[in-house]
Amino acid sequence: MKAEVRAAVARARAAGHRIAVVPTMGYLHEGHLSLVDRARSRASWIVLSIFVNPIQFGPGEDLTRYPRDLKRDLELAEARGADLVFAPAVSEMYPDGDPAVVVAPERLGDRLCGAFRPGHFRGVLTVVTKLFEIVRPDVAVFGQKDFQQAVLIRRLVRDLDMDVAIEVAPIVRERDGLAMSSRNVYLTREEREQAQALFLALSMARTRFHQGRTRADELLAEMRAALESRPLVRLQYLEIVDPETLQPVAQVSAGAVVAVAAFLGGTRLIDNMVLD
Amino acid sequence: MKAEVRAAVARARAAGHRIAVVPTMGYLHEGHLSLVDRARSRASWIVLSIFVNPIQFGPGEDLTRYPRDLKRDLELAEARGADLVFAPAVSEMYPDGDPAVVVAPERLGDRLCGAFRPGHFRGVLTVVTKLFEIVRPDVAVFGQKDFQQAVLIRRLVRDLDMDVAIEVAPIVRERDGLAMSSRNVYLTREEREQAQALFLALSMARTRFHQGRTRADELLAEMRAALESRPLVRLQYLEIVDPETLQPVAQVSAGAVVAVAAFLGGTRLIDNMVLD
Repeated sequence: MKAEVRAAVARARAAGHRIAVVPTMGYLHEGHLSLVDRARSRASWIVLSIFVNPIQFGPGEDLTRYPRDLKRDLELAEARGADLVFAPAVSEMYPDGDPAVVVAPERLGDRLCGAFRPGHFRGVLTVVTKLFEIVRPDVAVFGQKDFQQAVLIRRLVRDLDMDVAIEVAPIVRERDGLAMSSRNVYLTREEREQAQALFLALSMARTRFHQGRTRADELLAEMRAALESRPLVRLQYLEIVDPETLQPVAQVSAGAVVAVAAFLGGTRLIDNMVLD
Repeated sequence: MKAEVRAAVARARAAGHRIAVVPTMGYLHEGHLSLVDRARSRASWIVLSIFVNPIQFGPGEDLTRYPRDLKRDLELAEARGADLVFAPAVSEMYPDGDPAVVVAPERLGDRLCGAFRPGHFRGVLTVVTKLFEIVRPDVAVFGQKDFQQAVLIRRLVRDLDMDVAIEVAPIVRERDGLAMSSRNVYLTREEREQAQALFLALSMARTRFHQGRTRADELLAEMRAALESRPLVRLQYLEIVDPETLQPVAQVSAGAVVAVAAFLGGTRLIDNMVLD
């Protein structure tokens, strides 16, 4: 199937197309499909990949129960205008088991999510590199929801001289503000209700920043209080960071990012907002 | 200069050429030039790169005194038929200092040389990946002298799905058997003389293997005795390993590799021989 993808991309390129890739783990929702729209605005031939990448999951994480529905995904991707869906088997991506050579963060990988998911970004960078090598896209589209991932993908391309333009598309939210995620289906009704606290806290921080409040500790304290008022929300991290270094900032300036991760029951959700 | 290389390669490819790359650290000798010959047999347009890659040197290694002669290298490369020499500055390859994202061995990197040069192969794999991304060659040629490097480059390409054929060309030796190396210029006359013990020991092991001796411990003991008779040779490692796993073998079968590293004075030399 890798060989077929290479051949199909080569044909599209020979026909004058500009190639985009949209990497996903499937169980597509409007967030993913908005990435296809963004890809369409930058390229004329779109590969959407669907691969639940085992090496980016840690022990005890939700690899085996991660939601899957390939038939529905194929319909949605085609309806939205993907020209090719690449949904390889694990044995095709890792024919020898765990790879002996990987792509890994030397910095930036131990902050935020990386501090709680060791090896996660090594798995992400490795599989994205493989996908780039198979498709050789002109442009690749990622979602801002996975903020740290987007930062690392930009570094991947810059530090390894990959000739791929990286587009990062905004978070798509449910009506109450909850960031769309394939994992939202894990939530019970009560958890789902309290999950909107994440968006509310981020929005509050943005409002305060617009009102001229720039002390990170004050903004964080207010957000933390709001989140702690929801008993089902167990905060994992809440930080305001520099968008390039991912280091916490003391004084907030435009471009800083508020990033949050929390468990609701056994479900881990992340969200973030740029303070601009 | 990266952009110029990309443009020149694109023109060559558009003209129907098959592209080869020969990565080197310069101070070219017949070993390097034999790689150009090999490249010529597999491709019609050859990029030879010259880059003393700082991130593959450890503290206390010979980065600053590594021999350099770009003018002579350019003449030799051109005379041998390289179509383009890519000799970037450090600031061009690492404009932000040490890369935040690297390519690294998960396995195989801690054996042989890797056990004594932590981070070395991470530096090698990272710079080779960058070079591959800049040139996007059809084929890349490496020397068997850097045996572990060749094993890891094959894994790099396989594990990251890079569409590059890897060629490994045989070791080129001086008249007395010493493997050619840019570092040989460091040797005093006495060290140079005793350095031939490496080749003699490897040859002895091969002869014994051809005579039917297959116990690795016996072969190693005989080689070690021969090397220890040369007082200027300080052995770093001497092993007989499986050519894919790099694990030591107890019983030698065809394809096993004898690998050696030794210091002569402050100069570290490596050599190896396939038992076939």
